[in-house]
Amino acid sequence: MVVLKSEKMRGKIMEQEHGGNIKEVSAKFNIKQNDVIDFSANINFVGPPPDIYSKIKKEIEEITRYPESNSNNLRERLADKYGLDYNNYVLGNGAVELIYILTRVLNLQEALVLAPTFSEYENALQAEEVDIKYHYLLKENDFALDIDKLKGDLQENIDIFFLCNPNNPTGQYINKEEIKELLTHNAKNKIFTVIDEAFVDFLDQDISALSLLKDFKDLFILRSLTKFYAIPGLRLGFGIGNKEIIKRIMKTKDPWNVNIFAQKAGEVILTQDQYNKLTKKAIYREKIFLYQKLKEFANLKVFYPNANYIFIELTESDYSGTKLYNKLAAQGILIRNCQNYQGLDDNFIRIAVKSREDNKKLLNTLIKYL
Amino acid sequence: MVVLKSEKMRGKIMEQEHGGNIKEVSAKFNIKQNDVIDFSANINFVGPPPDIYSKIKKEIEEITRYPESNSNNLRERLADKYGLDYNNYVLGNGAVELIYILTRVLNLQEALVLAPTFSEYENALQAEEVDIKYHYLLKENDFALDIDKLKGDLQENIDIFFLCNPNNPTGQYINKEEIKELLTHNAKNKIFTVIDEAFVDFLDQDISALSLLKDFKDLFILRSLTKFYAIPGLRLGFGIGNKEIIKRIMKTKDPWNVNIFAQKAGEVILTQDQYNKLTKKAIYREKIFLYQKLKEFANLKVFYPNANYIFIELTESDYSGTKLYNKLAAQGILIRNCQNYQGLDDNFIRIAVKSREDNKKLLNTLIKYL
Repeated sequence: MVVLKSEKMRGKIMEQEHGGNIKEVSAKFNIKQNDVIDFSANINFVGPPPDIYSKIKKEIEEITRYPESNSNNLRERLADKYGLDYNNYVLGNGAVELIYILTRVLNLQEALVLAPTFSEYENALQAEEVDIKYHYLLKENDFALDIDKLKGDLQENIDIFFLCNPNNPTGQYINKEEIKELLTHNAKNKIFTVIDEAFVDFLDQDISALSLLKDFKDLFILRSLTKFYAIPGLRLGFGIGNKEIIKRIMKTKDPWNVNIFAQKAGEVILTQDQYNKLTKKAIYREKIFLYQKLKEFANLKVFYPNANYIFIELTESDYSGTKLYNKLAAQGILIRNCQNYQGLDDNFIRIAVKSREDNKKLLNTLIKYL
Repeated sequence: MVVLKSEKMRGKIMEQEHGGNIKEVSAKFNIKQNDVIDFSANINFVGPPPDIYSKIKKEIEEITRYPESNSNNLRERLADKYGLDYNNYVLGNGAVELIYILTRVLNLQEALVLAPTFSEYENALQAEEVDIKYHYLLKENDFALDIDKLKGDLQENIDIFFLCNPNNPTGQYINKEEIKELLTHNAKNKIFTVIDEAFVDFLDQDISALSLLKDFKDLFILRSLTKFYAIPGLRLGFGIGNKEIIKRIMKTKDPWNVNIFAQKAGEVILTQDQYNKLTKKAIYREKIFLYQKLKEFANLKVFYPNANYIFIELTESDYSGTKLYNKLAAQGILIRNCQNYQGLDDNFIRIAVKSREDNKKLLNTLIKYL
């Protein structure tokens, strides 16, 4: 069954998904923008590596120069770090740009996406007029991905499958063994697989499909650098795939797609072992704190947060997601109301893990309403 | 006749066209990158409005937030300044991104481009596998555009025509009267016209096609903000067209294509009347100085610089463009050798107008070799 979302719905998703309505909430409830606590965007609360700030300040006059064409230096350095060759890498103006360009260079008729999942796969596919089928993740199965059932939906008519791993907004993931099983099935059925690993850096265990790239030609891995490194304003992501696909992407995008500060941030990011370690620790500490406190609410079903966000079902409550969203917004707290995700109703919300202080404010406000 | 350039040639153009080889020259001749004087990129030598630097520094922590989706604030403010409606505007990650997306959303078979002209039209058209025909600007006509001859090449088989006005690298332009004549012809023949006004802000006279948008539906105007405001590293441009085209472009691009600092720069730019005036004055003073000094060389034919760059033919000289390029590069001076432009041979160079000090260095070095 092909379901197309309306343009209107699309706009709504975009605004809500990425903290775009801080401004709106600020205006509506007369709260200063800086006083709005944004739990709706899954950005590392620790903030960017401080070296990014100092590098931008120090080299600010570089805005008068063109960025390096195709970010070739970063392509080389990423290949050094993650393996394969420089020609297997492409840098994006955010990972989302690459979703749009990838769907464009592949000749697609029909796609399978999860429901619920990140909405930009659908938007990019719709822009190319690709028919979209949904594989629904079931509430009764805690939204876990059942590989056997999924394979049933991945038949020869499907050209491309998008997997967000761990999945956004549910936080569930599949492990390497299961990914391999999926890729083997898709290779047999000539289905191109995109694995979006935007949140993979937040996990302790290694579930990345990177090591499988050499065995599966029709695999494209997406990585965002804006979530873990807290730089969504700069825009930076990359894709890894076979050289033929990368070459087609390079030809289809403009050569200066990544701005000079994003390139500089990318160079800094590759040297941040200490920051990575401390960040993971801080997020782990806070997410466990928030998870356990939230579990104490009788009318919430809280899903374990594998990444840096917590997926929650409102059960037996008088509060729908929309109602709770509005109540919290009036207090300057922004959450992600998940009702406009395909496959979810108005009983689900998503909360990013933030600092102890912010998390406590959220908890104290929730106590008033739930 | 359709001529396709090789991939190799394309890479070469990109590197040479945009000052991409400062790094190369620096390494080859053991000159510090900051000591290389770059006359190859047509960037306003005055530098960006200082308010851009202070705004970035002051609001540097905004990199932790997503840019405003689709830059809607800037769309509104541009519409206030230039007319028409907010729905007629789209912001680009540089104007070049919009060239690529525009060629993608139009259903094109055959295109006409000038020769010589900015090479990204060809690159974007090639990415979409559009056949390219060239309208050659003639040396014997000083590379001026002859509207009557051009109309002869704009026949019904052509779907799109790209006009760079003033043209890069020649600096020639056509006036509003001629533009109107061209658009009337194209409307009759159902040819979509793109007018790239990347350098229009440098001119004293108003040659913009903006006022013609209301009468010609199949017209798209491109504006760069990176040349006049000296921010190529930030990437910022915009396009103006009919609402239907803009809607298709919005759907095909990702919503966060413009980074947060480019958006902030855009806001600053709209308040810079004083900077605009002073900049135009400074560039005019320097370009006339450089133009007149260059005309004193017997073996140079110097074209009048309408924008901020000077197009030059090397006549009766022992120096080809390549030879002169190499000689100057060894002295840390980078010029644009124009041999890889379609329609030019190795006897043409292009020089950006820079500060008096830099211009004098160039002149003193040229005296040694010419």
